[in-house]
Amino acid sequence: MLRSIYRLTRKLSASGLRSCSNTSQKLVLTTVDDKTGYATVTLNRPPVNSLNLELLKAISESLDDLQNNKSRGMILTSSAKTVFSAGLDIMEMYKPKPDRLKEFWSTLQDVWFKLYGSPFPTVAVINGHAPAGGCLLSLCCEYRVMCPNYTIGLNETQLGIVAPTWFQAALRNTISRRDAELALTLGTLFSSDEALKVGLVDELADSKEVAMAKAVSFLDRFKKISPQARSMTKQALRSKEIMELEDNRTQDIDLFVFAVTQPKVQQGLELYLEALKKKAAK
Amino acid sequence: MLRSIYRLTRKLSASGLRSCSNTSQKLVLTTVDDKTGYATVTLNRPPVNSLNLELLKAISESLDDLQNNKSRGMILTSSAKTVFSAGLDIMEMYKPKPDRLKEFWSTLQDVWFKLYGSPFPTVAVINGHAPAGGCLLSLCCEYRVMCPNYTIGLNETQLGIVAPTWFQAALRNTISRRDAELALTLGTLFSSDEALKVGLVDELADSKEVAMAKAVSFLDRFKKISPQARSMTKQALRSKEIMELEDNRTQDIDLFVFAVTQPKVQQGLELYLEALKKKAAK
Amino acid sequence: MLRSIYRLTRKLSASGLRSCSNTSQKLVLTTVDDKTGYATVTLNRPPVNSLNLELLKAISESLDDLQNNKSRGMILTSSAKTVFSAGLDIMEMYKPKPDRLKEFWSTLQDVWFKLYGSPFPTVAVINGHAPAGGCLLSLCCEYRVMCPNYTIGLNETQLGIVAPTWFQAALRNTISRRDAELALTLGTLFSSDEALKVGLVDELADSKEVAMAKAVSFLDRFKKISPQARSMTKQALRSKEIMELEDNRTQDIDLFVFAVTQPKVQQGLELYLEALKKKAAK
Repeated sequence: MLRSIYRLTRKLSASGLRSCSNTSQKLVLTTVDDKTGYATVTLNRPPVNSLNLELLKAISESLDDLQNNKSRGMILTSSAKTVFSAGLDIMEMYKPKPDRLKEFWSTLQDVWFKLYGSPFPTVAVINGHAPAGGCLLSLCCEYRVMCPNYTIGLNETQLGIVAPTWFQAALRNTISRRDAELALTLGTLFSSDEALKVGLVDELADSKEVAMAKAVSFLDRFKKISPQARSMTKQALRSKEIMELEDNRTQDIDLFVFAVTQPKVQQGLELYLEALKKKAAK
Repeated sequence: MLRSIYRLTRKLSASGLRSCSNTSQKLVLTTVDDKTGYATVTLNRPPVNSLNLELLKAISESLDDLQNNKSRGMILTSSAKTVFSAGLDIMEMYKPKPDRLKEFWSTLQDVWFKLYGSPFPTVAVINGHAPAGGCLLSLCCEYRVMCPNYTIGLNETQLGIVAPTWFQAALRNTISRRDAELALTLGTLFSSDEALKVGLVDELADSKEVAMAKAVSFLDRFKKISPQARSMTKQALRSKEIMELEDNRTQDIDLFVFAVTQPKVQQGLELYLEALKKKAAK
Repeated sequence: MLRSIYRLTRKLSASGLRSCSNTSQKLVLTTVDDKTGYATVTLNRPPVNSLNLELLKAISESLDDLQNNKSRGMILTSSAKTVFSAGLDIMEMYKPKPDRLKEFWSTLQDVWFKLYGSPFPTVAVINGHAPAGGCLLSLCCEYRVMCPNYTIGLNETQLGIVAPTWFQAALRNTISRRDAELALTLGTLFSSDEALKVGLVDELADSKEVAMAKAVSFLDRFKKISPQARSMTKQALRSKEIMELEDNRTQDIDLFVFAVTQPKVQQGLELYLEALKKKAAK
């Protein structure tokens, strides 16, 4: 597991240093299957789908489109070969412009609201590593199919940071309170097998293709169910956590900005990025 | 499983069309065992114990009697051979009189309060199918023994409707959050075996007699425990959900009346009842 | 199991009748390992670590010391051979002086706050029986290692009393809601094996030495994790229950004083203590 984290860090570095990537390329690819009506939303910000402001905006807009078109279901996956999403792009936090930093966090909140509370059913096809923010995206979905030999988890404490309460809420909606407390304090990155065992993912699949088929099978289970009744039921179940963040959006942004702009945190990021540059130079 | 749902629907139809049944017959039979002091409350509205206003009132009154007599324990079961309760009587929702409709829902709330928060221990002997409202009654009890080859679940979404938050609360008090979300959005009807596996029921029993014996065994476990300490402990554990409905009784009734009286819902019920009539005529 | 409860009761009796023990002896022994920096806090009020005001104060002060010294981790255990802690000292409740009774309960609340919300990681090495208040102390820790052939549980209802909501909260943070409801209403005392199975403890260990080693292994898992991020994560997870008691401290004390000073409760305690004296005299 350590080796895979290391490899991921290498990729993260590359990603972090290229945050001004070619904007002509679409950050999110959405396709809709004519037969089933299900949409596949593919994260497409090479190399590791680091979640910067532009990618988050693109996800947010895709979710709006699906909702406006009364989608029958969505599959969230990645175009990268070994990474689902490496989580938040640390370049957004390093020497940030105040307005952009606020917008960054506010857009992440938007994505959480739209995904966690989506009226249509959602499945994550986790075809690669999914640490921190990557894990969060999958937890906001209603079902998770994962390919083997990757890692997943809200590993924030391992990075010296704290998963916000709404990250925690999505985990507590999925696994037991006991397992969630251990996972969050330890910052556990679970292997695919461990994730299945603890209930963090629902199924394993040997390839992305098989995983996609399983995702479709899950969505098919809602075929004969009234979308409106389904949606209202889901939202009633998830309403407490949704209202809690709604009531605290501004404070939550302020807290994030305050934490990120602490001199100590900025120094830590600087050291981290320098280390990454040296690694990349080798 | 599909066949059993079909058979149940046939019976439901008969029930629905006979909502003005012979009132000289007792809708709830209560007996008290002289030795143990335990009461058996038997739902007795043939053919499938559809919960109409009169049956709900009879249940509510039985629960009052038990509480006033400081009952040591209650077993809830059915006089029907293959159905515990088919759930709410749809005839209460079709072309309803406003006052009766309100009273119907308010009485269901009463039953929920009295059963979910009862001072005495409660066991459901589920000797037949228990969909929707039938499942709810069993979930309000503290222990569930089920006979094999039946189905149970809050299958509201399969019927195009939404289980209210207090239905959901009773399920979430029983099985894991994860399983509850899947069960409620999918409207899952579990087989007896599946129900045992997911924790929706505590034990299976080959016959009603064996199930009754197991229910008595459960109640016996409280023999040496102070009824007052037990009751206060139970109510402390269940107080949040109870207070939540108490604080929202009127809004909850208004919401139900609003939903039921929508023209689309009434049209749906009309089509459904006509289909049932045709089936019954065959 | 009944035999072990009986033996425990015999010891409790001795404890109850010697509440004015030799105060020159330290009620809590704290040692810190030079290598690891982990503290071991050993309850040391023979014979059964009944929690009286003085012992609770000593625990509270030890927790303050650890927090002030930015402890890296704590192991809570007992110097008694077969008892972790027998729970609250009933002599504090019998013919109490009003001020001392209030201080007793308030100090128990303090211990709960400091242990349940401690910034440093905590493990209970349960090297003997842990009923009621003894179980509570272990539940406030983040990890539990238990030696075989003892019993543990919030068995308050078996003693005719009610576990306060904050006792219940610590149990619900550890095992499933369903298991917690059954355990609390039945007042279940679990054997070590049963406790492991239900998740009430995390590991078993054949001896106190092995248990201590397992506790150190758990604490070692946090070696590379930022103590501040860890602590904030833990406190976010546990904040709801902590705030709930903070908001209700005074009412909770009043409720306790009211309950304890009821004539019926005092009569019950008198009968109980007389029975213990007779047993002790044999």
